[in-house]
Amino acid sequence: MLHNSVRIGLVGFGIVGTGVARLLLEEAEAIYRRTGIRLELVCVVDKDTKTARKFNLPAGMLSDDLGRVLNDPSIQIGVELVGGTKIARQIQEKMLQAGKHVVTANKALLAEHGQSLFELARKQNKCIAFEASCAGGIPIISALRTGLAANRITALYGILNGTCNYILTNMTQKGLDFPTALAQAQQKGYAESDPTFDINGTDAAHKLAILAGLTFGYQFRMKDISVEGIETVQIEDIRNAQEMGYVLKLLAIGQVNAEGAVSLRIHPSLIHEDTPLARIGGPFNAISVFGHAVGNTMYFGRGAGMMATASAVVADLIEIAMGNSQRLFEAMPILRSDEKPKIQNIDNITCRYYVRLMAKDVPGVTAKYAQVLGNHNISISGAIQHEGMGPDNTVPVVITTHPTQQKNMNAALEEIATLDIISGKPVCIRIVEIPEDKD
Amino acid sequence: MLHNSVRIGLVGFGIVGTGVARLLLEEAEAIYRRTGIRLELVCVVDKDTKTARKFNLPAGMLSDDLGRVLNDPSIQIGVELVGGTKIARQIQEKMLQAGKHVVTANKALLAEHGQSLFELARKQNKCIAFEASCAGGIPIISALRTGLAANRITALYGILNGTCNYILTNMTQKGLDFPTALAQAQQKGYAESDPTFDINGTDAAHKLAILAGLTFGYQFRMKDISVEGIETVQIEDIRNAQEMGYVLKLLAIGQVNAEGAVSLRIHPSLIHEDTPLARIGGPFNAISVFGHAVGNTMYFGRGAGMMATASAVVADLIEIAMGNSQRLFEAMPILRSDEKPKIQNIDNITCRYYVRLMAKDVPGVTAKYAQVLGNHNISISGAIQHEGMGPDNTVPVVITTHPTQQKNMNAALEEIATLDIISGKPVCIRIVEIPEDKD
Repeated sequence: MLHNSVRIGLVGFGIVGTGVARLLLEEAEAIYRRTGIRLELVCVVDKDTKTARKFNLPAGMLSDDLGRVLNDPSIQIGVELVGGTKIARQIQEKMLQAGKHVVTANKALLAEHGQSLFELARKQNKCIAFEASCAGGIPIISALRTGLAANRITALYGILNGTCNYILTNMTQKGLDFPTALAQAQQKGYAESDPTFDINGTDAAHKLAILAGLTFGYQFRMKDISVEGIETVQIEDIRNAQEMGYVLKLLAIGQVNAEGAVSLRIHPSLIHEDTPLARIGGPFNAISVFGHAVGNTMYFGRGAGMMATASAVVADLIEIAMGNSQRLFEAMPILRSDEKPKIQNIDNITCRYYVRLMAKDVPGVTAKYAQVLGNHNISISGAIQHEGMGPDNTVPVVITTHPTQQKNMNAALEEIATLDIISGKPVCIRIVEIPEDKD
Repeated sequence: MLHNSVRIGLVGFGIVGTGVARLLLEEAEAIYRRTGIRLELVCVVDKDTKTARKFNLPAGMLSDDLGRVLNDPSIQIGVELVGGTKIARQIQEKMLQAGKHVVTANKALLAEHGQSLFELARKQNKCIAFEASCAGGIPIISALRTGLAANRITALYGILNGTCNYILTNMTQKGLDFPTALAQAQQKGYAESDPTFDINGTDAAHKLAILAGLTFGYQFRMKDISVEGIETVQIEDIRNAQEMGYVLKLLAIGQVNAEGAVSLRIHPSLIHEDTPLARIGGPFNAISVFGHAVGNTMYFGRGAGMMATASAVVADLIEIAMGNSQRLFEAMPILRSDEKPKIQNIDNITCRYYVRLMAKDVPGVTAKYAQVLGNHNISISGAIQHEGMGPDNTVPVVITTHPTQQKNMNAALEEIATLDIISGKPVCIRIVEIPEDKD
């Protein structure tokens, strides 16, 4: 029977760090009874040793000296929960150089410098475990690496940023505009005081880079991902889309086509209200994965928060203590090949579109924009034009299209924007058709 | 980097066996590229070597001689996909005795004889891997063992039988009665010609025994589980419940209370239409798990079928080849303690109820049954009594109650059934309130 014991140094005593310390100190005995693994928290390092946290450490455990972790040869695992890409990178490198495995929730660092860190870990014969870096407490990295390992994964669709999902859910359910919904999210603690990287899609892109790396077997760079955020989403488009049976989500999409070209993108996406992902509300995350053998599987849970993220960190600690993470790390396809991925340009992606034009209320308007769309080979699938006026004597005209390539749509919209019957820039949102797994 | 190779003997060339052979033979190279693991299918054993399957084996690979697996020392893993509890048990025992790890999808065997098989495996220093035994291609066993390992799991709610879910979905969506929906499921291949163990809840109970064993750390026996099937479900109760905002599902429920007593049950359950599990339709499975740190996570996918189940079998083969399954097997809490679980008697479970009475259309009826309920301390929460007659000059009266203990409800119903104003036996269905994880 298993009787393994590991000693752990934790660096970063913020929200997640506090949760990890609490789980390790409160649950050590229960985890030992369940698994035979003894997790021993030796010390916690943070530059701020004064501010009270939500959980009190035993006297002498908190220090501002990183050497407490690096220079203690009895510590086998270093947990980096500092965040950011500069100091955190140095800390992880020092931990690996000191012969320690690394556990981290740092998606930004792995997305931007994962390759060099993974290479260093391999050289040191250590592993980096990062279940907590994507989708908080949802064991999606474990699922992709183990449970779905027999599958060629063809696509994944994720709601990976809880802040955006909370804001969009609130806009949809309460009819709020974006600034009001953002302010409420900040009040509730679902958005930071500087929410830039959440709402502009960067955070979701970091997570997609990591998940896609595991899924498709390449080391992707941030520039391989097309990223659009939710800053410009308008409540009236959410309402129009709802009327047509769609829900607006910020989706992270990773797909590989029959020729092996990969498409990675983060953008506001209209999905049909019957799609399972359409029902993921509030701050929750979910990932829908399509495998060639298993079909569609979906994973749902809290994408952030103190204890949910801590749950994933401690899961990694248990797996390292068992010896499993080391093997999974060795088995990672991105360590097995230097092959560069073929990235599909977003201009060549085909999808359906939602378009809103502010048309002047004069005769012949419909014919004019319809003509431009037709000239670009774009076929109209549905339309709503409610009676009554918008601002400046305009009428909002909403259309949905049949599938067309992004470049056709871009060209058509550019031309439509120049028509004198159209006021302002047209709004254009992609309609994402998530395949349905059914018989 | 990982370079492990394993040789595999497959016993049972039915539907799932065919899927496993296909994955192993078609995907071996791709799996090697992804993981560094080489899976080599050596032979396939089945008593029927004549009937054509959906996938053709290379010449000489199919045999009716189990000795081809047992007596080949180069074969490290035996896959048992025979099903049933008698011959399959002998096969697994022989495989373990011959020094092979075992991979199986056999929920009935593990639920009924898991303890003795696990003990034999431990004695032989081998492991039994069984991801495919519960919920087909959904990696729920992996999630419970690894991703959620830091959590005390307080409850799980599962739709674990695809046949029942297909039948209930069809009844709900098309208004079919049970016999018609069952016949359609048989035509579609979602129910076997003898569907007894699916529709009476036995199959779901087998899976719950396995999942609860991993979750709560005890070796449960089938008699620890209260089991009711869907054979007596009537379409009119599905319709009435829908009107009140509920959906009928066959749920597998495992809960542990604050005193450590475990409740395990399979029964038709009305859940609120907004509950995520309420939306799991057709032959799909889903499991909602509540952990003390992670909160609510949910797992969704195909619970059966050739390739989905094969996906889980091959995932186990990869994990054994890595060496991970062996450690997870050693870490299993049911191998760590002989402690007997405290089982909560279903009579002491408290829940809300849906009750339908066929009341005679005479004055004073409502007062009479309401009086009986009140005498048993049962408080009415909602009621529907549509105008118009049922059979035999009766009126269907539907009520929902506030939470009460099963034994109070049983006593009240017994008394109500004796009232001369009531015709026939009252229908009673539990309303299951799945906690909502929200802030």
